[in-house]
Amino acid sequence: AVTPVAAVLPAGGSGERLGGATPKQFCAVQGRPLVSYTLRAMERISWISDIIVVVSPENIETMKSIIEKYGHKRVMIVKGGITRHRSIFNGLKVFADNEFANHLLQKPEVVIIHDAVRPFVEEDILSKVVMAAKEHGAAGAIRPLVSTVIACDADGCLDHSLERARYRASEMPQAFLFDIIYEAYQQCTDYDLDYGTECLHLALKYSKTNAKLVEGTADLWKVTYRRDLYAAESIIKDNLSQQVCVITDVKEGVVQVGFLLHESLKSQIKVEAVSISLSKTDSQPQNNFLGQCYNFVCVNDKKYAIQETQQLVDMLERSNIPLLYPVVVISVHLDISENISFSIEMEEVTRIKKFAREVKKKNILLYGLLIQCK
Amino acid sequence: AVTPVAAVLPAGGSGERLGGATPKQFCAVQGRPLVSYTLRAMERISWISDIIVVVSPENIETMKSIIEKYGHKRVMIVKGGITRHRSIFNGLKVFADNEFANHLLQKPEVVIIHDAVRPFVEEDILSKVVMAAKEHGAAGAIRPLVSTVIACDADGCLDHSLERARYRASEMPQAFLFDIIYEAYQQCTDYDLDYGTECLHLALKYSKTNAKLVEGTADLWKVTYRRDLYAAESIIKDNLSQQVCVITDVKEGVVQVGFLLHESLKSQIKVEAVSISLSKTDSQPQNNFLGQCYNFVCVNDKKYAIQETQQLVDMLERSNIPLLYPVVVISVHLDISENISFSIEMEEVTRIKKFAREVKKKNILLYGLLIQCK
Repeated sequence: AVTPVAAVLPAGGSGERLGGATPKQFCAVQGRPLVSYTLRAMERISWISDIIVVVSPENIETMKSIIEKYGHKRVMIVKGGITRHRSIFNGLKVFADNEFANHLLQKPEVVIIHDAVRPFVEEDILSKVVMAAKEHGAAGAIRPLVSTVIACDADGCLDHSLERARYRASEMPQAFLFDIIYEAYQQCTDYDLDYGTECLHLALKYSKTNAKLVEGTADLWKVTYRRDLYAAESIIKDNLSQQVCVITDVKEGVVQVGFLLHESLKSQIKVEAVSISLSKTDSQPQNNFLGQCYNFVCVNDKKYAIQETQQLVDMLERSNIPLLYPVVVISVHLDISENISFSIEMEEVTRIKKFAREVKKKNILLYGLLIQCK
Repeated sequence: AVTPVAAVLPAGGSGERLGGATPKQFCAVQGRPLVSYTLRAMERISWISDIIVVVSPENIETMKSIIEKYGHKRVMIVKGGITRHRSIFNGLKVFADNEFANHLLQKPEVVIIHDAVRPFVEEDILSKVVMAAKEHGAAGAIRPLVSTVIACDADGCLDHSLERARYRASEMPQAFLFDIIYEAYQQCTDYDLDYGTECLHLALKYSKTNAKLVEGTADLWKVTYRRDLYAAESIIKDNLSQQVCVITDVKEGVVQVGFLLHESLKSQIKVEAVSISLSKTDSQPQNNFLGQCYNFVCVNDKKYAIQETQQLVDMLERSNIPLLYPVVVISVHLDISENISFSIEMEEVTRIKKFAREVKKKNILLYGLLIQCK
């Protein structure tokens, strides 16, 4: 039997450390709020049934519009408290409290707690902490310390330094048997709720559960400072440019160009190039490559130019991809005719420009390339 | 009297955490090794007399070529040991050990220890730790903890978590009265030298000196992971595009265009625009703005095009700026003549392209813009 698993994402932080007015979870990364990347990372995992995102009252409308705009599924918004622990407690209450009787969700066996500002969480670590929580009652991801940790005395001088190897940084995700963490929160003092930050600590203190610690990968890091937003942006861009799809029509010369492009790209940069013929395949197999690819080179001979590109753009629109990430389409038009007319070329360029302006609104960045070869 | 201050930069790390073959201090950021940015941050501070960079034996030649290529001054290379503490100790010996009698440098009163992988260190924090070291014998920059710190038990489970507010992350720079830290290193055990990482701890343990802790800014962070290299690159790019210098010749119409450009840039993006006339000023005042600016818009009427741009490029070359950062020059040529000849325009474009190719080798990115206005 599959364990019922839900997730609670506290997203109520104020972003003080970022030095900006916008809380970091709502900061745009490649035009899309950070929290949307984290929601995407959670919702693509089929065995997480419900995702509770906890936001401060003033951001509920913003959060609603994000969920709508980016088409997030299985996500419920809950009003946060004034501190992190109070927000997480509010999120957990959805599954247990009578106050929420109207929209009470099925109580999960295991609940994941994850930060809205850790967008690069992978299924592997989520699965590991859930398994460990089933066995130990509580579990959390840890990382080695980057800096030595020291204690200050009352005069602002060094009291002692901790031996770095004996300690770890407690990161997210964490997972708990629902009853264990919920009971811990119910027994919490106001002091805990106001000044505490560590869920593992509550499970230990109030439910006598020593959480299992699971070594996580470096990509669990939390977006805290402006530099972290820069890093997130670069990582997302990098991920987007891992793969390119080369599409050609069925004419022999064009297929040959597509093949050569495929070969030369393979040898120069880390790309996966797929050659398919758009007009030959039906819509089903097309959707297979659409799921992972954000870059398309569409090689045509001139006559079918806009038509074939239009077909690809339609397919992309039917998928949700351009909602989540900008998609780049390079439409290459080979002109192998004998007579090259400057004015006809210009007409073609104008048509592509107009089309590109249209699809840009749909987050599809279309570039046209006219190649004249005698 | 000015306190004699020197700096030791351990740069011997292997870059394991980066997951790459190149140690992070030698990774290219905007084409230039990270360590060069850190050296620049130190050498621009006039009151630091000597900068000792400690590198592992296999990287000494690389380090030599970096110092030569980027014109670093007051920098001496010292061979590192197999651990961080052994490397720092080697760096300190240059000022005290008879072994180095041939090239013994003047012993400083205060020595700064700073990581080669923290390129964004500012004079303010360096000055603060040096002052505090003079008074207390030792001082170090600290930052709030980003994550909760926890201790594991033998089974890999949570033993206890530390109260985050009571602890700090120990960062760099640190500073010491030379005799205090040198004596501490002399008394160190092999265990300390092999497994320790914290200089403040040595000063406490062997010299009974409680270091003064100084709150640092967020930009003290250490480049540890690949994402940190991404962040460093974005920060450097951001810094480079903070300021633009608009240069015009003396003709009335051109000065007017420069003024309008200045005004519109000021209102749209965060730029400092300076309007000067290149041909009117002598070389001395020109060097004043050259020191801080990496972006130039050079507005000319057409006749003086290459000539004026050449003059600016020469000035840039005489400075060290293009060695350290890419410099962008946008050469705008206003053509206000009645008769516009397409072929003459093309000649102009070809000349600019050729010139741009030449200066690109000198890290000057020249763009030409021809504007025809009737």
